[in-house]
Amino acid sequence: MNINGTHYHTIWVKENDPKTIEIIDQRLLPFEFKIVELKTIEDTFIAIKEMLVRGAPLIGVTAAYGMYLGMLSLKNSDDLNRKIKDLGKHLESSRPTAVNLKYAIDLVIDKTKSLNTAQEKIDIAFETANQLKADEIENCRLIGENGFPLIEKISKAKKGETVNILTHCNAGWLACVDYGTATAPIYAAHEKGVKIHVWVDETRPRNQGARLTAFELDQQGIPHTIIADNTGGLLMQKGMVDMVIVGSDRTSSNGDVANKIGTYLKALAAHDNNIPFYVALPLSTIDFEMNDGVNEIPIEQRDQDEVRFIEGWANDQIMKVRLVPENSKAVNYGFDVTPAKYVTALITEKGVCRTNKTEIEKLKQ
Amino acid sequence: MNINGTHYHTIWVKENDPKTIEIIDQRLLPFEFKIVELKTIEDTFIAIKEMLVRGAPLIGVTAAYGMYLGMLSLKNSDDLNRKIKDLGKHLESSRPTAVNLKYAIDLVIDKTKSLNTAQEKIDIAFETANQLKADEIENCRLIGENGFPLIEKISKAKKGETVNILTHCNAGWLACVDYGTATAPIYAAHEKGVKIHVWVDETRPRNQGARLTAFELDQQGIPHTIIADNTGGLLMQKGMVDMVIVGSDRTSSNGDVANKIGTYLKALAAHDNNIPFYVALPLSTIDFEMNDGVNEIPIEQRDQDEVRFIEGWANDQIMKVRLVPENSKAVNYGFDVTPAKYVTALITEKGVCRTNKTEIEKLKQ
Repeated sequence: MNINGTHYHTIWVKENDPKTIEIIDQRLLPFEFKIVELKTIEDTFIAIKEMLVRGAPLIGVTAAYGMYLGMLSLKNSDDLNRKIKDLGKHLESSRPTAVNLKYAIDLVIDKTKSLNTAQEKIDIAFETANQLKADEIENCRLIGENGFPLIEKISKAKKGETVNILTHCNAGWLACVDYGTATAPIYAAHEKGVKIHVWVDETRPRNQGARLTAFELDQQGIPHTIIADNTGGLLMQKGMVDMVIVGSDRTSSNGDVANKIGTYLKALAAHDNNIPFYVALPLSTIDFEMNDGVNEIPIEQRDQDEVRFIEGWANDQIMKVRLVPENSKAVNYGFDVTPAKYVTALITEKGVCRTNKTEIEKLKQ
Repeated sequence: MNINGTHYHTIWVKENDPKTIEIIDQRLLPFEFKIVELKTIEDTFIAIKEMLVRGAPLIGVTAAYGMYLGMLSLKNSDDLNRKIKDLGKHLESSRPTAVNLKYAIDLVIDKTKSLNTAQEKIDIAFETANQLKADEIENCRLIGENGFPLIEKISKAKKGETVNILTHCNAGWLACVDYGTATAPIYAAHEKGVKIHVWVDETRPRNQGARLTAFELDQQGIPHTIIADNTGGLLMQKGMVDMVIVGSDRTSSNGDVANKIGTYLKALAAHDNNIPFYVALPLSTIDFEMNDGVNEIPIEQRDQDEVRFIEGWANDQIMKVRLVPENSKAVNYGFDVTPAKYVTALITEKGVCRTNKTEIEKLKQ
């Protein structure tokens, strides 16, 4: 998607320099736009650990390129495969709970293991990373294509009046490579000239909505309004929301959806006001072995200071301010689980699907 | 209640100087504790308008003292009552939508109108303000007494284990004169040795929970934890909340409750998880003429910059930082309305009452 009128992916091979990968330092958005070069596996490790890149699909692609960068210095030897495994083990420790990270690393290890020379392995690692990136883009494009008719239908029912879509957190292109998941149908609708407006939950504590989703929409020229997370219920009561689209970090086989903390509250309000609540996700987030997301998905607990402090822009710099009494503690859970009964449907790269085990199983085919 | 171990009200007559009223500048809490002197009606006007004092009961009491301060300079003349009315008209414009403000001003006008001399009127105005303050304290004390058994019952059912209470915004003593409304049963339980812990919603956008409720509880030594507003649903799903107590800005005769934006979302989550949801309020917030709060209570829209910016503590001062992209707009609704069916009961100075018209009518008697 666009930044300052130029098309970007969240990660790319530097022009005329295939040994350098470039990313956007997302910690600085929307206040500063800075491109960072990754030249070693250590650069990649830091970019993932320090959250210059975030979002499951983007973390995966970054890790695949990181493996490639790490392999660049390998020379032919007997224990090449062991060395590659060691690189993977190290890189995996940058964010131990990210499923896509492990998947991408294992993919590179697997694709390169039967090749003999270092150069052959390097070439295939590069190709694997490029292909993974292309696959992520295509998945998001298809989610957009499959989700678009849901927006179009509401637009037609409203006789072309603006469709108001509420979203939570950032399941946008910045979390992926392009298009995003929850945002993909939104971008598709905008491109096809359907009138839309997006309510952007600021998404405390890390404010990914106010910082990243608003930035994305602003750069695409899509009408949007930022709201405190407390506001969505009122807007739904007042008929000011036509549909909700959010992303998912993990989905169980019965259709329970783990997403950024607060998603569940919006699902309850949508249910109470008969508003469709959609979750857009790539199939890779579905855990087909898990039957009860509400009780089985572990909830990540993060540093309390993400609640106690906040970052913003003042005096021409990013500043961190304390929000609470010095002695008061906070807790910080990363996500909650929305029960399947409150999810109208899943929007995937394979199509739209009701949230029950039979329908979800069919996606595997 | 206490600040730094000393008992305070939110407003008081200065010791040995009955022509000076003192308040706490609540805009600076929890970062700085500063007492401000009010010597004129203009001081009072600014204190209300600039929100040094906030909360319906406290605004009312401040206005009554403000009328008294304004009358201090009156001399005997024919048109004393007209002059007093003019003072009231002016003071009322400091926050035009605050119902308690008008009530308090009219009360002083009414109590003083049949008296002849300026001094008699001044004396009665002072007495009226003192009495209004005493009444507000007594109402809150009774709300605490009436609400306490609800906490005690849960404590007994849990065999004395900690009762976890979630609250939203600040319906604490800082919004009243002492005790608070939603906090009154909490303070009563703490005083009587019942083990409690309070989940404090930070309450974006103005963060009255993180700033004021947390400050109050910290100063009283009551265990509490601040959470992002998004978190309550997860805590309820996980059995980590035993009850919810919030305040009310306005209550319709059928039991719909207007309170700080986001209250409705917590009520939905409490309902979904079979957790009792109580609203503590003085009878003065009940509009007995209004039959449908959800559709009839007007929702105040406030400045978008309360969402786009936030205040916190950095470099030994209160700083304001921007949270969103420079071009992105926000909307800022002050409260939402929770339908009566999601409210377990009202806790009032006259007792605990189910949310239906018949029961609520009985409170009038």
